[in-house]
Amino acid sequence: MATHPKEIKVAGRTLWTVLIGRPLRSSEASKEQINPFEGLSALSLDALTSVAYGPEAIIVVLALAGAGALHLILPITLAIIVLLAILVVSYRQVIDAYPGGGGAYAVSRANLGANASLVAGAALIVDYTLTVAVSIAAGVASLTSAFPNLSPYTVAICLGILALITVLNLRGLGDSARAFLLPTFAFIIGLLAVIAVGLIHPLGLHQAQPGHSLLSAHGLQVVSVLLILKAFSAGCSALTGVEAIANGVPLFKEPRAKRAKRTELMLGLVLGAMLLGLAVLAHRWHIGPRSQETVLSQIMGMAVGRHWAYYIVSLTITVVLALAANTSFGGLPILGSLLARDNYLPHLFGLRGDRQVFNSGIWVLASLSALLLIAVGGNTIEMIPLFAIGVFAGFTLSQTGLVVHWWRERPPKWHYRAVINGTGAIVTGAATIIFLISKFTQGAWIVVIAVPLFIVLFKRINAYYRSVTAAIGIDKAPPAPEGRDTLVIVPIVNVSKLTSYAISEALSLGQQVIAVSVIIDNADANQQRESTLSEEWEKWNPGVPLQLLHTDYSSIVAPICEFIDEQRAADDRQIVVLIPVLVPSKLRYRILHNQLDLILSRDLRKRTDVVVARVQMPFPPMPPRPDQRSVRQKKSSKR
Amino acid sequence: MATHPKEIKVAGRTLWTVLIGRPLRSSEASKEQINPFEGLSALSLDALTSVAYGPEAIIVVLALAGAGALHLILPITLAIIVLLAILVVSYRQVIDAYPGGGGAYAVSRANLGANASLVAGAALIVDYTLTVAVSIAAGVASLTSAFPNLSPYTVAICLGILALITVLNLRGLGDSARAFLLPTFAFIIGLLAVIAVGLIHPLGLHQAQPGHSLLSAHGLQVVSVLLILKAFSAGCSALTGVEAIANGVPLFKEPRAKRAKRTELMLGLVLGAMLLGLAVLAHRWHIGPRSQETVLSQIMGMAVGRHWAYYIVSLTITVVLALAANTSFGGLPILGSLLARDNYLPHLFGLRGDRQVFNSGIWVLASLSALLLIAVGGNTIEMIPLFAIGVFAGFTLSQTGLVVHWWRERPPKWHYRAVINGTGAIVTGAATIIFLISKFTQGAWIVVIAVPLFIVLFKRINAYYRSVTAAIGIDKAPPAPEGRDTLVIVPIVNVSKLTSYAISEALSLGQQVIAVSVIIDNADANQQRESTLSEEWEKWNPGVPLQLLHTDYSSIVAPICEFIDEQRAADDRQIVVLIPVLVPSKLRYRILHNQLDLILSRDLRKRTDVVVARVQMPFPPMPPRPDQRSVRQKKSSKR
Repeated sequence: MATHPKEIKVAGRTLWTVLIGRPLRSSEASKEQINPFEGLSALSLDALTSVAYGPEAIIVVLALAGAGALHLILPITLAIIVLLAILVVSYRQVIDAYPGGGGAYAVSRANLGANASLVAGAALIVDYTLTVAVSIAAGVASLTSAFPNLSPYTVAICLGILALITVLNLRGLGDSARAFLLPTFAFIIGLLAVIAVGLIHPLGLHQAQPGHSLLSAHGLQVVSVLLILKAFSAGCSALTGVEAIANGVPLFKEPRAKRAKRTELMLGLVLGAMLLGLAVLAHRWHIGPRSQETVLSQIMGMAVGRHWAYYIVSLTITVVLALAANTSFGGLPILGSLLARDNYLPHLFGLRGDRQVFNSGIWVLASLSALLLIAVGGNTIEMIPLFAIGVFAGFTLSQTGLVVHWWRERPPKWHYRAVINGTGAIVTGAATIIFLISKFTQGAWIVVIAVPLFIVLFKRINAYYRSVTAAIGIDKAPPAPEGRDTLVIVPIVNVSKLTSYAISEALSLGQQVIAVSVIIDNADANQQRESTLSEEWEKWNPGVPLQLLHTDYSSIVAPICEFIDEQRAADDRQIVVLIPVLVPSKLRYRILHNQLDLILSRDLRKRTDVVVARVQMPFPPMPPRPDQRSVRQKKSSKR
Repeated sequence: MATHPKEIKVAGRTLWTVLIGRPLRSSEASKEQINPFEGLSALSLDALTSVAYGPEAIIVVLALAGAGALHLILPITLAIIVLLAILVVSYRQVIDAYPGGGGAYAVSRANLGANASLVAGAALIVDYTLTVAVSIAAGVASLTSAFPNLSPYTVAICLGILALITVLNLRGLGDSARAFLLPTFAFIIGLLAVIAVGLIHPLGLHQAQPGHSLLSAHGLQVVSVLLILKAFSAGCSALTGVEAIANGVPLFKEPRAKRAKRTELMLGLVLGAMLLGLAVLAHRWHIGPRSQETVLSQIMGMAVGRHWAYYIVSLTITVVLALAANTSFGGLPILGSLLARDNYLPHLFGLRGDRQVFNSGIWVLASLSALLLIAVGGNTIEMIPLFAIGVFAGFTLSQTGLVVHWWRERPPKWHYRAVINGTGAIVTGAATIIFLISKFTQGAWIVVIAVPLFIVLFKRINAYYRSVTAAIGIDKAPPAPEGRDTLVIVPIVNVSKLTSYAISEALSLGQQVIAVSVIIDNADANQQRESTLSEEWEKWNPGVPLQLLHTDYSSIVAPICEFIDEQRAADDRQIVVLIPVLVPSKLRYRILHNQLDLILSRDLRKRTDVVVARVQMPFPPMPPRPDQRSVRQKKSSKR
């Protein structure tokens, strides 16, 4: 019988186990540490793949001012690359200062106080959710650019990929990081090669392009400072994900900080090169936004022609965009567990599943992203304004937190560090504000509403947990426990082995046992049952009284509750309701049994003044184990 | 505290209670008896409203042979009226012979044996389900004939009406019977008046009719005997529901049989008059089937014109067709409870809800009908072949059963009675077979598959119940119950009032109590928790040992199960796992608590070798009742 529960568990979960793998030891989880190249695949895809939507976002804004404004792509991209450099330097410092990882929530909790950390936490949750949705939607957009006849199925494909990533993450992040190496480097090398070909000797400049240009001849707008700022902040979406490495320092092999900093530098160089190359090509070829094709796809098509190289790189982009969503799945569940530890989210989020991952966080992230993908119909462009605000609020808070950190700690060269982080804070803060203002009516208001709502939720949960802790005195010596006499009430329907089994267990539990059975008056069948039951009980004579409870109603719970109340009023004994349950070996037979259990368990769950217990008799009865039987025999021989 | 569980129950179910009404006493249910007029509204609408689809079914078949065959409507309807007369006489005899009610299942169980009764039971279930679907679909078809722009919403309207009827029936049949009186008599008088106007002085003969005629000029078919038989059996669907009164005799006031027989006679006369009148008009005006308008609607339109009278009667027909579905809701749940009593269906079907109705049966009927309505897209004509087969199989079995009954009992004039029922059995049996053969490929095969499948299901359930009864020896004196020593295992997470509360309850239950807590190795937070917990436990010193269970995995269930196995191997004590649960006063706070309960309850449910109990501490704690406190004080002063 020792292996019995596990066997049942395995049988019932076979498919699931195949999907998410066998349970892992905690020690196994901690061995899953990564080197810088694996770090690039596990934690940098979010940032690298933003080349698929960052330049596009700039061009869409510029196109509002007509074809003449498109040349601004180059200076704007250069400004973004400068900001990227500041962020990379800053986050290399974050890695030095917080080698334990943590991200904006941890940095601002340590330096800026609880309220700032809640803002960071809420912004990060919004950011993580949007990252998943934007990444997947961008991946699918890239796919439907290459295969336009797939575009009616955009949302379905998005949800399919989301489901896949969710299962992958329920398996765990570590294993998959290594699996991602190949597509990651195929993407980096492939896209850099395509850009190089485009710069040196474009092959597909005169091929026809599908879809019609979104570049309107009408509605020209003056190229104003506001437009440039809008385009700049839109393009900043290409910087999202730069923070992920600093959040995940503990995932690296020792020396952690050194390896993480190396990864951050690699990320900065590769991303900078890609952005610059794409901007030069877009500028050179006057790329405008098109209805059915992404900017990246247009550039690739012109660079290498619509041949095998184009399709291979397109497919790679689809794959890595989908994998980029994975970065969020590594981040939000850990953030959720930190918030749960600090009593800002239900403690459920702090519970690890069999694969050592925080299942609740993964499910919540998957559900929120799915809702979002459905709501916007899988359209990336609509989500980008929402997306970058959370990221940049996080940037601003962690940079500001670092300035406070340097000021407090004052390590060597702290002035220099504070200046870099201060600059970062100011630029990212400015970008956040520009974003908020310029995109407010286009969806950014959702973030403005969502972040405070999350903060209110965190605070209410925290207040509730504090009131509970105070009331039940966690970690304070409570009153000494004291036993009482126990009355066990056993609801029965007939005289049978199940009844006998239940009453045996009841006799083991309490000083007094009463069997009860509900007789519904005015039902002929029941009145006959009453006399049969009484007779049989007397004949059986189990040494336990049988109390027949009469009722006019059809509910069998009400008379049992009334009986409990009577007993409760009589004295101060503990009352246990022991519900006999027959457990058939096959699941499908359950429906044939235990209506009593079904009804009583549900309704008695609301009574806090009784202990509700289920005594389960297997059917067919399981033979006792050999060693068990011998123990039993030894015992009885002693008696 | 006495009213506490009920209060919670009411709060949680307020909306539901408003919908289905307060719980009823069994004595109240038995007072809800009806007189013959109410019987007509409660039990005869099914039969009466079949005028909405019976004549239509005949005309659809005849139209296959071209316009020339339409004149056969008259002789075919006359034959159906003769069969109606036989059935009415027969069922008046069934009422005499089985004043306790019961229908085909009870009659054949008493006279033809278990197997025949299972055929009747299966056929009735199919019949009842189809009655609901056909009635509602016909009602909506009548509505969309009058208001053609509603026709795209056919299925949605069908499901809405089904939901309404379901709720009405969860309230109970009795009350509603009286509420149905008005629409029933509005329908009877209205339709008879329309027919009379049509016969004497039609008002709308030359008005345009919507939709195009389904009468094809091509594909003419020879008017063969087979065609006439097909048309006859199709028209027999107008006789469905004639049995309902005999099934529901106990619903009538005393003298039951006399009143029920009077109702049956009224039903026969009214239905016969309607069928005859409609056939004469259809014949006179050469009515053919049309795509968007029912035959009944065409006749009404021609008789009174499309003015207020047409719309009022159309609306009445919609209402009573929907109410006709109610007859099935009165029938199937009672049949289900009989089958459950005889161990052919899960005992759940024998359980009455708060309103004295068999809830499970109502839900199953509603679900099956909804599936059917969706599957056929709310199209009545497609369902009629399926429909009548079940009804006529039931007719045949109950008529045959009556013949056996008369032969066994031999009351005065039994020869005469047996001849009538025998004729009924032969004609309805023949109609069943014609139906089966002629409509086999058009859907009747579904019934041919469904009925045996139901029978197999009944038999398997019965065999299983018998094996359980044999194995656990229901109603045989089982072994005498015997108490054992009890070990109570209390999984805890920290030292708190909840822990203290749970251990107090545990001390009341068993001779030995062990508190256990799972420590996950390799998790820093947990190792700190381990030392804190040990220290606090020692400081508190509750007189109960604390066992820390170490695990490498993240599951907290596995180590607890292993600990149970160890204890189980050591001796033969009963093992109780007592799970401490905090019950917050507001439902929405539940998510914040009791992850332990969630996981343990689910996984320990599979272990039949332990008793799983929940000790529930309310939060905030409820003050003890005054009388309770005094009891407690008395007790403690005694000590």
